[in-house]
Amino acid sequence: MKRLQDLLRIEFPVFQAPMAGSQLHELALATSEAGGLGCLPCALLSPAQAREQLGLLRAGTRKPIAVNFFSHQPPQPDAAREAAWKQLLKPYYVELGVDFDAPTPVSSRQPFDLAACELVEAFRPEVVSFHFGLPAPELLARVKATGACILSSATTPAEARWLAARGVDGVIAQGAEAGGHRGVFLGEEVDTQMGLFSLLPQIVDAVDVPVIAAGGIAEPRAVHAAMALGASAVQVGTAYLFTPEARPTPAHRAALASDAAEVTALTRLFSGRPARSIVNRLMRELGAMNPVAPAFPLAGGALMPLRAVADGDFGQLWSGQSARLARRDLDAAGLTRWFGEAALAATAPQ
Amino acid sequence: MKRLQDLLRIEFPVFQAPMAGSQLHELALATSEAGGLGCLPCALLSPAQAREQLGLLRAGTRKPIAVNFFSHQPPQPDAAREAAWKQLLKPYYVELGVDFDAPTPVSSRQPFDLAACELVEAFRPEVVSFHFGLPAPELLARVKATGACILSSATTPAEARWLAARGVDGVIAQGAEAGGHRGVFLGEEVDTQMGLFSLLPQIVDAVDVPVIAAGGIAEPRAVHAAMALGASAVQVGTAYLFTPEARPTPAHRAALASDAAEVTALTRLFSGRPARSIVNRLMRELGAMNPVAPAFPLAGGALMPLRAVADGDFGQLWSGQSARLARRDLDAAGLTRWFGEAALAATAPQ
Repeated sequence: MKRLQDLLRIEFPVFQAPMAGSQLHELALATSEAGGLGCLPCALLSPAQAREQLGLLRAGTRKPIAVNFFSHQPPQPDAAREAAWKQLLKPYYVELGVDFDAPTPVSSRQPFDLAACELVEAFRPEVVSFHFGLPAPELLARVKATGACILSSATTPAEARWLAARGVDGVIAQGAEAGGHRGVFLGEEVDTQMGLFSLLPQIVDAVDVPVIAAGGIAEPRAVHAAMALGASAVQVGTAYLFTPEARPTPAHRAALASDAAEVTALTRLFSGRPARSIVNRLMRELGAMNPVAPAFPLAGGALMPLRAVADGDFGQLWSGQSARLARRDLDAAGLTRWFGEAALAATAPQ
Repeated sequence: MKRLQDLLRIEFPVFQAPMAGSQLHELALATSEAGGLGCLPCALLSPAQAREQLGLLRAGTRKPIAVNFFSHQPPQPDAAREAAWKQLLKPYYVELGVDFDAPTPVSSRQPFDLAACELVEAFRPEVVSFHFGLPAPELLARVKATGACILSSATTPAEARWLAARGVDGVIAQGAEAGGHRGVFLGEEVDTQMGLFSLLPQIVDAVDVPVIAAGGIAEPRAVHAAMALGASAVQVGTAYLFTPEARPTPAHRAALASDAAEVTALTRLFSGRPARSIVNRLMRELGAMNPVAPAFPLAGGALMPLRAVADGDFGQLWSGQSARLARRDLDAAGLTRWFGEAALAATAPQ
């Protein structure tokens, strides 16, 4: 099999994980320019914002770039459930002096749609990656027709087989260690999710396309380990949040740099879908997987007024399980090269 | 640091994980004879059985051996909770035609106590390992006085620091991938448990003693990965269950060899403490972490009559997350050498 970096014409098999809400084009640009694969997450951008950011990324580098989209089905609104959720949060509104009767903001995540497809057709990013499965076949075919390399995340061997059967060019094996949203799309259970030690080799054995290892990869030892388990590339998320090109909120940045980052859990409180966050007050007090929180992505709306006052207590603090291992003294270019040199050493013929 | 296999005078840095209920001395004997470190689990043995099994192990090999004990605190009996648990199981008793009014068997796990300490003093195993923390200081001091190398499992960096501060000679980093009981002993939460990719290097960085990697290690790729992350040895459990020297129940053996082994979860149904099992009917129908199940180890009692009729549906099917990667054509000696050669290759100077 041809090396993934040769297929993609990148220097290092190091992918910067898309981190919607914690980065814009700057991080992707610096990563791609340094020889890795930078990625712009579009899930939290309006079509106009996505066009602007992708334009800035494309204009800033001649090297390959990636764009990431969520491919979930938007939920049916459920007024009763949303009211129950806001009621559950009422004591916090009262405590913080936030107006409970003001209209609840709407939390939105943009699924991949016709407008997004047209954006891809206009800018022709070298890589298009999806989270939560794949878009509808007719849209996927249009993305393929642009010549883009298509990736998606698998959290189980079954999901990897499903993706491979639909013609993806690579599978991101998202170990349970990973920060942010689990990419799970077959079933809804998360208590059966696998750590990367088990998931990665099983996916490598299950599919014939390159596998990118994700989750808990925050320094070179993990790069060597991922390559030993059969990865063709690594995808790094949390470690990039410490670089100046990332844009976590101040509360998020502070939590990542604190001892609290040693303790993370999957939670559905912030969006309605399970995602890994540093454990904070809301998770402790309501239970991280509380079923009252509305379906993705609606749960976040009622939290927005609370986050405006106390983001660290009521906002998502996405983090993988290896934040404490990440360096804090490198910019995105330096981090990319640090991982990249490890990856090349790990795959060099001996 | 001296190599762990040199300290222990074993050929390979390969530890056979103690699997109470699924093995006796035969598996430990074959592993030690082949150059690894075989381990006899005593948690489910009476003092007389433990003495017999340890005697057979000691007599069968002149090579180093390990013995494992649980170091939990026995719970306060709680008749109301046990009654509620049995009531929850009543539909199964009815369905299977099992006498609901017969006395409920008592499920027991032997904690490390004076009798166990005297056994250690009599047989002087080279390694004594504990699960669920450590025994009381005066008992631990007596074990140390025998010259045994003392190990215990850590499931978080905090637990590793706690163990190191109490003078263990090595820490077993038990990744969330591992089958059987989580060794968690500081706190009771399991939703914050780490995959081995994150746990292992953080423990390696946190303590000054050798770290043994456990969880999801079922073939040589994982051995290379564990060594890359800083492990001094690997501990292999599930893969040994496929060898003829292991003694899983027929239902357990069948489940391990089936596609069902791809899906495991942590459950407290079978013992009262979270442990990883292949998902079976009881877990699906009651919820794997159902809080009604009594405290460890009492939950298992009311299940015994059901297991006698339908073990696969109502019995623990302990398995790590990599069972599908395990070979099925080797005996314990062959498996030990297969892992051992990988471990020596992974640590050889290049």
